[in-house]
Amino acid sequence: MRLVTFRQKDRLQHRIGALTPDGTVLDLAAADPALDGGFMPALIAGGSAVLHHAQAAAAKAPEAKGAMLCAPIPRPAKNIFCVGKNYHEHAREFASSGFDASTQEVVPDAPVVFSKPPTSVIGPGEPIPSFLDPTNSVDYEGELAVIIGQGGRGIRSADWRQHVFGYTIVNDVTARTLQHKHRQWILGKGLDGFCPMGPAILTADEVPDPAALRLTTQVNGEARQDAVVADLIFDIPTLIATISAGITLEPGDIIATGTPVGVGIGFKPPRFLKPGDVVRIEISGIGVLENPVA
Amino acid sequence: MRLVTFRQKDRLQHRIGALTPDGTVLDLAAADPALDGGFMPALIAGGSAVLHHAQAAAAKAPEAKGAMLCAPIPRPAKNIFCVGKNYHEHAREFASSGFDASTQEVVPDAPVVFSKPPTSVIGPGEPIPSFLDPTNSVDYEGELAVIIGQGGRGIRSADWRQHVFGYTIVNDVTARTLQHKHRQWILGKGLDGFCPMGPAILTADEVPDPAALRLTTQVNGEARQDAVVADLIFDIPTLIATISAGITLEPGDIIATGTPVGVGIGFKPPRFLKPGDVVRIEISGIGVLENPVA
Repeated sequence: MRLVTFRQKDRLQHRIGALTPDGTVLDLAAADPALDGGFMPALIAGGSAVLHHAQAAAAKAPEAKGAMLCAPIPRPAKNIFCVGKNYHEHAREFASSGFDASTQEVVPDAPVVFSKPPTSVIGPGEPIPSFLDPTNSVDYEGELAVIIGQGGRGIRSADWRQHVFGYTIVNDVTARTLQHKHRQWILGKGLDGFCPMGPAILTADEVPDPAALRLTTQVNGEARQDAVVADLIFDIPTLIATISAGITLEPGDIIATGTPVGVGIGFKPPRFLKPGDVVRIEISGIGVLENPVA
Repeated sequence: MRLVTFRQKDRLQHRIGALTPDGTVLDLAAADPALDGGFMPALIAGGSAVLHHAQAAAAKAPEAKGAMLCAPIPRPAKNIFCVGKNYHEHAREFASSGFDASTQEVVPDAPVVFSKPPTSVIGPGEPIPSFLDPTNSVDYEGELAVIIGQGGRGIRSADWRQHVFGYTIVNDVTARTLQHKHRQWILGKGLDGFCPMGPAILTADEVPDPAALRLTTQVNGEARQDAVVADLIFDIPTLIATISAGITLEPGDIIATGTPVGVGIGFKPPRFLKPGDVVRIEISGIGVLENPVA
């Protein structure tokens, strides 16, 4: 199932929906009052019982007319965990771009983890405020993100599946000049609106092997990124084990797993985003996350 | 006023209190039911009207018998913003320690900002779980933290006072080996229990000049850090302006401003924390944050 958070025109309240293959949004709470006042983190924390409610509701839920998709988790309860330099070819393009101030080696020997604050999250279709980067160095990074279900600390990599609720798409938008200038990356990557997310959470039961998922990114219709998740340097089981070794992961936590080769600074000269551009990221089965640049 | 969050033995609920100069905790909700169900972020977001309620309540509130102090904001709504290498002498001791993988220069030319997740927060007296660092490289960092009141983006440094609710103490506990290994710092600094906070929020009205505050740290009674906030490389107005340039600051956000010289890796060989140690950080006016090491 593809779970979404949506709201209807002229209403502020978020509702839980299901996204059909043809893009229709189903209003789950209209079919099951137990899902009313819906709030994705509560659904995730509810575990399999609540998920079964949602699945049963999806079978009979009416269309949500005029639904506008939000980020599936519009306001995460903490910063989003993000992984840097986690595809070989991207690690090389980043190293040769001159924007990496963080280290000497090209390919990291341990996961490089940073965060983006909840205030950076926007939904599908919402504009990326590139004007917040005074240096006009805004870049896209299409990424697969893992949504944690059952929490825990010290999760063994072999047990990773027990802790994954599903998958979504994140655009790890980055102001390259700020990323370089401030050494640690939250200021260059955490700006308001710099974390488009969506369109849906594809539940883990529909993903036998996330490594087989294919990610493509287009800017204004031009192909920029095309990779399979199998190319990750540190795979999803390793990321979950590494982060949870000392940090308790909680239901609804989000781990953006890194971006493949093909970002704007991979070009010489770099091709930064500018107002009017449209970034379109697609991952097989999850859908399309498309955002204009403002 | 020194505001605290406390709970009473055998009760889970957090309550808002005031800490008197002699260390007594006053139960503000017992004097003013408007403060019942108290939750520090709501008090902070309530602005001056709610703060006046709290001040009036403190004048007549009874002692909270058997109160145990928690972190003043036990569960921040996002990661804590933290600033690295923000005192000259500390930047030098860190550079010469060999644990800085992030850059070549000793003193940064722009604020180095990273984050610690909400799950890292513990209160006064709670044990720091050094056992979570398998490499036994746990170090203390006594820091002044700023609590944001009125939020905003693009806050000018000249307007900083309008946005500060108060001040507290943070121990930016760090696993040095993980800090170095993962390049970006959240894994080395974000472990569960690695952000002791408290004992109180000293409201901004009682701090005419935070630069005049003096911070001292002791380990097992031995003086380790002794500095005035005036020695910050990037002062509080600059930090607020820099972070808020692209990131909306919200009420209850926390900015840990950096640590002065005297951390464990400043010694040769490094003097890491070990189980049974006690770290005591004091800032004039705010109080003492003391935590044992487990």
